[in-house]
Amino acid sequence: MSSTAWRLDPDRGFDPEPSRRTLARDLYATVRNLPLLCPHSHVPPALLADPEACLGDPASLFVIPDHYVTRMLFSQGVSLEDLGIPARDGTPVERDHRRIWQRFAEHFYLFRGTPTGLWLADELVNLFGVSERLDGASAQRIYDHLEAQLARPEFRPRALLARFNIALLCTTDSATDSLEHHRQIHAAGLARVRPTFRPDALLALDAPDWPAQIARLSERSGIDVVDYGGFIRALEERRVAFRAMGALATDHGVLSPTTARLSDGEAERIFVRALRGAADARDAARFTAHMLMEFARMSCEDGLVMQLHAGSLRNHHERLYARFGPDVGADIPVATEWTRNLRPLLNACGADPRFRLILFTLDESAYGRELAPLAGHYPAVLLGPPWWFFDSVNGMRRYFAEVIETAGVYNTAGFNDDTRAFASIPARHDLWRRVSCDWLAGLVTQGLLAADEAVDLAYELAYGLAWRAYCRGSATSGLPLFHVKPAAKDQPRREDEHSASSTT
Amino acid sequence: MSSTAWRLDPDRGFDPEPSRRTLARDLYATVRNLPLLCPHSHVPPALLADPEACLGDPASLFVIPDHYVTRMLFSQGVSLEDLGIPARDGTPVERDHRRIWQRFAEHFYLFRGTPTGLWLADELVNLFGVSERLDGASAQRIYDHLEAQLARPEFRPRALLARFNIALLCTTDSATDSLEHHRQIHAAGLARVRPTFRPDALLALDAPDWPAQIARLSERSGIDVVDYGGFIRALEERRVAFRAMGALATDHGVLSPTTARLSDGEAERIFVRALRGAADARDAARFTAHMLMEFARMSCEDGLVMQLHAGSLRNHHERLYARFGPDVGADIPVATEWTRNLRPLLNACGADPRFRLILFTLDESAYGRELAPLAGHYPAVLLGPPWWFFDSVNGMRRYFAEVIETAGVYNTAGFNDDTRAFASIPARHDLWRRVSCDWLAGLVTQGLLAADEAVDLAYELAYGLAWRAYCRGSATSGLPLFHVKPAAKDQPRREDEHSASSTT
Amino acid sequence: MSSTAWRLDPDRGFDPEPSRRTLARDLYATVRNLPLLCPHSHVPPALLADPEACLGDPASLFVIPDHYVTRMLFSQGVSLEDLGIPARDGTPVERDHRRIWQRFAEHFYLFRGTPTGLWLADELVNLFGVSERLDGASAQRIYDHLEAQLARPEFRPRALLARFNIALLCTTDSATDSLEHHRQIHAAGLARVRPTFRPDALLALDAPDWPAQIARLSERSGIDVVDYGGFIRALEERRVAFRAMGALATDHGVLSPTTARLSDGEAERIFVRALRGAADARDAARFTAHMLMEFARMSCEDGLVMQLHAGSLRNHHERLYARFGPDVGADIPVATEWTRNLRPLLNACGADPRFRLILFTLDESAYGRELAPLAGHYPAVLLGPPWWFFDSVNGMRRYFAEVIETAGVYNTAGFNDDTRAFASIPARHDLWRRVSCDWLAGLVTQGLLAADEAVDLAYELAYGLAWRAYCRGSATSGLPLFHVKPAAKDQPRREDEHSASSTT
Repeated sequence: MSSTAWRLDPDRGFDPEPSRRTLARDLYATVRNLPLLCPHSHVPPALLADPEACLGDPASLFVIPDHYVTRMLFSQGVSLEDLGIPARDGTPVERDHRRIWQRFAEHFYLFRGTPTGLWLADELVNLFGVSERLDGASAQRIYDHLEAQLARPEFRPRALLARFNIALLCTTDSATDSLEHHRQIHAAGLARVRPTFRPDALLALDAPDWPAQIARLSERSGIDVVDYGGFIRALEERRVAFRAMGALATDHGVLSPTTARLSDGEAERIFVRALRGAADARDAARFTAHMLMEFARMSCEDGLVMQLHAGSLRNHHERLYARFGPDVGADIPVATEWTRNLRPLLNACGADPRFRLILFTLDESAYGRELAPLAGHYPAVLLGPPWWFFDSVNGMRRYFAEVIETAGVYNTAGFNDDTRAFASIPARHDLWRRVSCDWLAGLVTQGLLAADEAVDLAYELAYGLAWRAYCRGSATSGLPLFHVKPAAKDQPRREDEHSASSTT
Repeated sequence: MSSTAWRLDPDRGFDPEPSRRTLARDLYATVRNLPLLCPHSHVPPALLADPEACLGDPASLFVIPDHYVTRMLFSQGVSLEDLGIPARDGTPVERDHRRIWQRFAEHFYLFRGTPTGLWLADELVNLFGVSERLDGASAQRIYDHLEAQLARPEFRPRALLARFNIALLCTTDSATDSLEHHRQIHAAGLARVRPTFRPDALLALDAPDWPAQIARLSERSGIDVVDYGGFIRALEERRVAFRAMGALATDHGVLSPTTARLSDGEAERIFVRALRGAADARDAARFTAHMLMEFARMSCEDGLVMQLHAGSLRNHHERLYARFGPDVGADIPVATEWTRNLRPLLNACGADPRFRLILFTLDESAYGRELAPLAGHYPAVLLGPPWWFFDSVNGMRRYFAEVIETAGVYNTAGFNDDTRAFASIPARHDLWRRVSCDWLAGLVTQGLLAADEAVDLAYELAYGLAWRAYCRGSATSGLPLFHVKPAAKDQPRREDEHSASSTT
Repeated sequence: MSSTAWRLDPDRGFDPEPSRRTLARDLYATVRNLPLLCPHSHVPPALLADPEACLGDPASLFVIPDHYVTRMLFSQGVSLEDLGIPARDGTPVERDHRRIWQRFAEHFYLFRGTPTGLWLADELVNLFGVSERLDGASAQRIYDHLEAQLARPEFRPRALLARFNIALLCTTDSATDSLEHHRQIHAAGLARVRPTFRPDALLALDAPDWPAQIARLSERSGIDVVDYGGFIRALEERRVAFRAMGALATDHGVLSPTTARLSDGEAERIFVRALRGAADARDAARFTAHMLMEFARMSCEDGLVMQLHAGSLRNHHERLYARFGPDVGADIPVATEWTRNLRPLLNACGADPRFRLILFTLDESAYGRELAPLAGHYPAVLLGPPWWFFDSVNGMRRYFAEVIETAGVYNTAGFNDDTRAFASIPARHDLWRRVSCDWLAGLVTQGLLAADEAVDLAYELAYGLAWRAYCRGSATSGLPLFHVKPAAKDQPRREDEHSASSTT
């Protein structure tokens, strides 16, 4: 069976015009080996809590949990059952992981021109040493190869954490999480792994499992949540616990970034209605808008950076949700209004020097119209990197083209990979570093930026901005984080392996 | 009188960077002569029904019926009366076609930088052999030349159908059309010409001519439409008739793609109200939303591909509409919501393997935000090519840049020309083929796609995607369609003139 | 103290691909020295009324009044107090202009990649002869240099008006302005400086200072405004006065471009309610929508070009507004609907040959969807250049890419600088000329435009379009304006210093 050699272009992501390409290469060389800051991810902390944890077999690593992959196959007629996605309604699903892998390999051509295709190619070739192109013919040979690699100790998550040169890895954790995994991780000396406080489930007043969430909050916080005041105190208590484990930030996922303060009386009435099981969708929406104001207030007080991800209509496909639950690739964005919606929150806290708010959108039309002007005015606001569907070559290019002229580089938050696929982290950062260096090279070759400024900005985009957005000045526990400063002018950039600074 | 030679750049549409241009040329060479699939057009079937039909004189071919042309002249102060657009209110209009042509020629510079300008140049130079640039000075000489060409038998529509290498041409036909023209066309052995079922006029419950439309529906279907049930049966009967004439698809033009199923009782009440002449705009909108659900159901059952064109506010200029009727270049797009609007329909049918829904937008901000994620999830959804104003070099480039990274190439429907200007068909397809090859060349030269993958995708974009979207698996009458398969790997691409396959 | 030499790339704004760059340079050479038409600006006429007026010191010229500059520093934690912005609530602010300049210089790196950075560099280097890069170390040396330059007679505003080769400079003036400055300017023979009629403050029925505005209108017009009829007559009287001073246009800034004619009775009732101090925000919005219709009617009658700037939510940051008032960089755009909103106005006047309406948007998603189709249909509509945040390299590129294919070049209004920073005028026009020539060079090198057409269009974009939009055919006082016609074909372009034509 013939096979096609798989080799990645060392200049991928760079414009072919020679003067620009040469400069992009030079800039990229200054940042490609900088440590990775991953201030927002969905990596399961369990992977790093257990020193013996493995990444699993090829199907359970690359296919089953990755909704970027499964939605594309689903869109072309492959059922989620055939991809082995666990069904919560008891429907039997494929259990043979080699057959799942085979189906994936036969459809791998669907990812041509997509970031998922680029990430997977980078992982398979550069991380796992695959040498022939993935398709139906090569599928089983490559499965064998990957299985052998994954069995080796250097592919254990903790080994990869070091090999990937990850200087910070923030997970995303329910506000009611025990943080037990993080305790184990820190006990192993991996202070660079941090939890992030995500209280979304506690705001879904009309969800069936909300009472259970409140019960868990009471249990974890030691505060019996029987009224609105207790709810606020319990949240504050949990934030203390997260900060003690080194948390740098909170994260909030909302359909709309509406913010509006309720009177205490009104908040109390809605909360009590919810405790009686009588809250409806409108109550939940108003309460969420109010709680965003409260979370901003808490961030002013405790220094946790506030991240806001808005605009995803979750679980659009109802039958799929009933069978497989959330996060199977059926979340579809909607148009999102920021200017009016954030006005109450920003008028309350947007100029508070203790506050930092990082915004993430799935509506690119808001980049230049609303988000860049907001970030270019309010001291607290930074604009997060292109998110989800837009974490892509063109997504990044549009982001640079539409955001920077108004917001400037320094009102952005650098990159984060936002991934649950641990092994894809280097590929994602690498693509960002390539595309950002190519963008800077474009500015220089068009006479719009000086060459030395481009070197500074390449460092900022790869490392400095994310460091300042999340790590500098945060009121955390003082757990040390490794930090790389920019090279002094007139000297080649050099990583100083011995410099380490605390985050406080 | 001096004249300027008119010569088109053989590399038009290609980036000037040499490595990219070379590759774009090579890719284009593999697809430029592939047969044309035209699965959505507005070509009048009368043109092909009569073997002696002619395209008319230069003004009636290039100016009077083309709202792309007339709107631009109107925007610069030329009246529609002076362009000879027939007035339905009896206003006298210009009847001297040489004077109309002269006005057009004097304003031809207005089309610089527009797709209409590119198409017209391609038609005039490459199809009609015009050799000097069109302006006021050359107008009458070129009129003479065109008149002579148009009188020749090789410029009759049927001759051009063969010369253009059109393998499929779908017209757009009222649901109440007699299909008599198509019968004549098929009798002449031109099975590649197909009708498309367009029932829009039957949903405009509040329009003055709706009763007449219903009367015609009753007559054509043989079912006396006196209630909602009869209406549905009559529509189903008409779909049977369209399929018997080889129809592959339906087409639906709506202001908003709202979908929502009414109860049978409610549908009946609205329909009866309309029969009494008492339906209002809200009734019409709710009924339309309901009928989209019904048409999706019918498509699941009979296999007709469902096309949905949304977002054009028709007849914005009321005085012009009163005098000249629709389609004079005064339709203006509006922002269009897809995620919430299509949810009911997609939850009902979006994963039905018998169903295919092709979406067309005039709101490009929805490409990456809503349409690509929907196409990248629901098996039934494909995204149609850039439509109307966006059938242009930059429109295509934005489409590729904003859609493909999320939806992938294979969830798109290839190209269609959507034209009523029969003679412009090759020019439009040629521009798409050029721009798509240039886009692929850009990916390859940036290291984001392998060269052999680009060859495959060039074929897909020029031919394969449209074939699969409309022809493969459609439950039609078995009328044979000519089909060109992609070249086998390791072999130069070659058209097999002898291979013909049915569509079933 | 080491310093970095500051030298601007002579090819800035041009694509690096050699064939395109060469052509861009050639095109730019044909337009770079054309006179500047500035038909929309916020330059204070006082600067030109007094022959001895100065531009001030470096801080009061470059920092304090420029909200593009101050918002960026504010976004990074510099207070407006520390930048010397005058506070209307009596808060003390920095009065040491050298310290303000120092703060600005230390933060100048924030403007990397922004149009403000490009304009400032051009001004400092090319206009003021600064030779080292601006940063904290060079700040005071550069202050000294600028101070010395600004003291020289050739840096007085009237001297710069000539040196900048400004052929038309329209200011923006309250409808109740005395026009005394303009009288002085014209008395000095500077007929190229013109007022623009801006009545916004008279439409804010619910604003605290509206009664004062009405009182001033009564005083200026000599008509006692005690009812709606008097209000209309007084506005018409003021337009006569503006036209007598050479006004070419009106300007209207609105949150939403809603247009809707009220009945006379309704207009009267709302107006009387406002005179009683009882109008609310809804009244103000409805009255504004009505008055836009009225202003369009007046423009049909008196020939003043109507400019409409929509979509800025002013004074988003309430605390800052309370302290510092408007125009401090806290205006944030919102999504803007044009198709439905302008329909009443365009149906009334959109095809009136006496009327011209120029539209400006902060919502780029409307460019291709709504604005280009409107401009490409209605004879009265032209699309203004990229506005405010989008007056930038990428903003212009998106404008060309999204507008021209539908609207054509000739339905656009050329460039205007919209600046209150008099010294930045040449830098802004120069950037537009560079980017437009580069865009045209791109079209030519891609075979989409002939080289001679590009020469014509370069002239149009730099000069001709703005001339025709504002100056040709306007029913003004006949004050002469200097005009440069395009070079005849086959001849090198040449400015005819002796040709001067009136605007009528």
